[in-house]
Amino acid sequence: MHAARLERARARMDEAGIDALLCSVGPDLPYLTGYEAMPLERLTMLVVPRDGDAVLVVPRLEAPRVEEQPGVFTVEPWDETEDPIARVVAHVGPARSIGIGDHTWARFVLALQDALPDARFRSATAVTGPLRVVKDAAEIEALRAAAHVVDEIAIAMRAQPFAGRTERDVHRELVERMLDGGHQRANFAIVAGGPNAASPHHEPTDRVISPGEVVLCDFGGTRHGYCSDITRMFHVGEPPADVCDAYAALVVAQEAGVAAATVGTACETVDAAARRVLTEAGLGDAFVHRTGHGIGMDAHEDPYVVEGNATPIVAGHAFSIEPGVYLTNRFGLRLEDIVVAAEAGPDRLNRAPRDLAVVG
Amino acid sequence: MHAARLERARARMDEAGIDALLCSVGPDLPYLTGYEAMPLERLTMLVVPRDGDAVLVVPRLEAPRVEEQPGVFTVEPWDETEDPIARVVAHVGPARSIGIGDHTWARFVLALQDALPDARFRSATAVTGPLRVVKDAAEIEALRAAAHVVDEIAIAMRAQPFAGRTERDVHRELVERMLDGGHQRANFAIVAGGPNAASPHHEPTDRVISPGEVVLCDFGGTRHGYCSDITRMFHVGEPPADVCDAYAALVVAQEAGVAAATVGTACETVDAAARRVLTEAGLGDAFVHRTGHGIGMDAHEDPYVVEGNATPIVAGHAFSIEPGVYLTNRFGLRLEDIVVAAEAGPDRLNRAPRDLAVVG
Repeated sequence: MHAARLERARARMDEAGIDALLCSVGPDLPYLTGYEAMPLERLTMLVVPRDGDAVLVVPRLEAPRVEEQPGVFTVEPWDETEDPIARVVAHVGPARSIGIGDHTWARFVLALQDALPDARFRSATAVTGPLRVVKDAAEIEALRAAAHVVDEIAIAMRAQPFAGRTERDVHRELVERMLDGGHQRANFAIVAGGPNAASPHHEPTDRVISPGEVVLCDFGGTRHGYCSDITRMFHVGEPPADVCDAYAALVVAQEAGVAAATVGTACETVDAAARRVLTEAGLGDAFVHRTGHGIGMDAHEDPYVVEGNATPIVAGHAFSIEPGVYLTNRFGLRLEDIVVAAEAGPDRLNRAPRDLAVVG
Repeated sequence: MHAARLERARARMDEAGIDALLCSVGPDLPYLTGYEAMPLERLTMLVVPRDGDAVLVVPRLEAPRVEEQPGVFTVEPWDETEDPIARVVAHVGPARSIGIGDHTWARFVLALQDALPDARFRSATAVTGPLRVVKDAAEIEALRAAAHVVDEIAIAMRAQPFAGRTERDVHRELVERMLDGGHQRANFAIVAGGPNAASPHHEPTDRVISPGEVVLCDFGGTRHGYCSDITRMFHVGEPPADVCDAYAALVVAQEAGVAAATVGTACETVDAAARRVLTEAGLGDAFVHRTGHGIGMDAHEDPYVVEGNATPIVAGHAFSIEPGVYLTNRFGLRLEDIVVAAEAGPDRLNRAPRDLAVVG
């Protein structure tokens, strides 16, 4: 599988005119090799020359973590007192156009630019983007399996008490349930009670959740290399009319976004479909973010479901549809599923109930 | 406090000839402002012009997370369909020498270089490094408090069973204990049993720990913004002579490293002091990494206790002393404490017992 991916990457390098590909931290490296770099100051970098063998330059003390893949890449450990940049430069050779992974640390980008003053650096996404954005059947099943785990958690949370607990306590429960469900890591678990839910990326606090409040739970992690991401809404006790009305509009907006996400439709058209429902309900200004983001080995990746992105959806695109309503000092609401585009129509991976769950 | 740090950063910018400082993900931003950027594709970036007001360019949906600090920085949210790079460029103005944070993603570095073709980009560490490397009294107390939490965990683990458990299970316990102890996040928890301990950065697996095996536990997290990091060794049942002998040498080596870490001593001399003990015990080749790394808001930062680093230790430097012995296919050992350099001598923050703990 990795050999085939590297072959496709090399074909893309030809098309894009990139002589050498450099992958460090971030999803490009595990996508191409199965190995994930540690996000540390010791450089790990895969060098893929357009016509030469791929080499993984890796700190000596991390070399035992890597399984060499003959025909895919060889492992080249560097010692503590060596300069790993020099190792990379040696393998880059005369390359003049270099694609470097999007998440690579600035310190390494600058050091490589200093060492290769005649090279032009571009984003490796020119090479890996078109490959990673279209998920194959195995990748879709990995996303579906991860989605199933968080679905089960969302369902279990409907029977849990919320009142009297801190956001941090619920956050912790979500993290532990993701790990118990076989996620190798929990990437995030937003828990936002009452007015805190009006902050879309709220950080869980010690604020105690009270009766009469909404609780927004948006959580996801990584399972077998692929990400989950779901948002479900809870209300402590029966919700008041304003929350019910806004939530009803949100459900329709999310449904409209999913329904619009057919093969051939522009990403921005999907965004507009969800947004129109909220605008017509008088909540357009309260929907302060895009409708969704792609998902795969990275929690957020192409394609982005956002105004200005005219990219047409193709079969195998995987993305969130997650409209929201944020009313400062009052409350916030969001509803999110992961959807895979297919010729037969949008395939919603998350199946947990989408109603506003009334909890204790 | 943040206003004072920014003033010192501006003074360093003068000395280093840097016109504008750009901080994104990584510890520079929380060090200067108290705010930590989310490691996502939406750019968060603090712009500090040498003579102008600092501005935090932040995604609109994350703006509610940020507390504006009058006199330190203002918040400038950008909307989903805007280009945040253009916002940053506008604040950079005519700056020609730019310091950019070490952890900034390559995609943003390249986009800024494209937008500012006449600017020279350098590492922001030229500015923030000399500030962050010397910890003040409050920072030392934050490191001490974090160290105390992992000390208590190391002590508690001495009474826990290891045999029959997977590495992953023990890893999970360490993570949960760090969170229970008030760490906002667990950064890592290496658990390596038997021959796996010969891999210094081993990733915990489902391998079951058996009687007669060493277990290396190296774990740390972040508490109130400052990192903990400790390694302690366990042995299931009474250890055999070869393990005892190597461990005895390791304890002496670690003690020698700590004792050498006095104000005015070069970092590489500290490394050599620990290394000499293991070399004389015939274990020099088995000690495959440097003796230590600095620690603060980042888990690994300057100063590095490594051959080739002639930087003299000054009061307020905080770093690990962690020699190790790695014997492929047999076992591995490491012993690690965090030490703060002080005029009165090395101040070891970790106080958990350093013997090879015999466990069940």
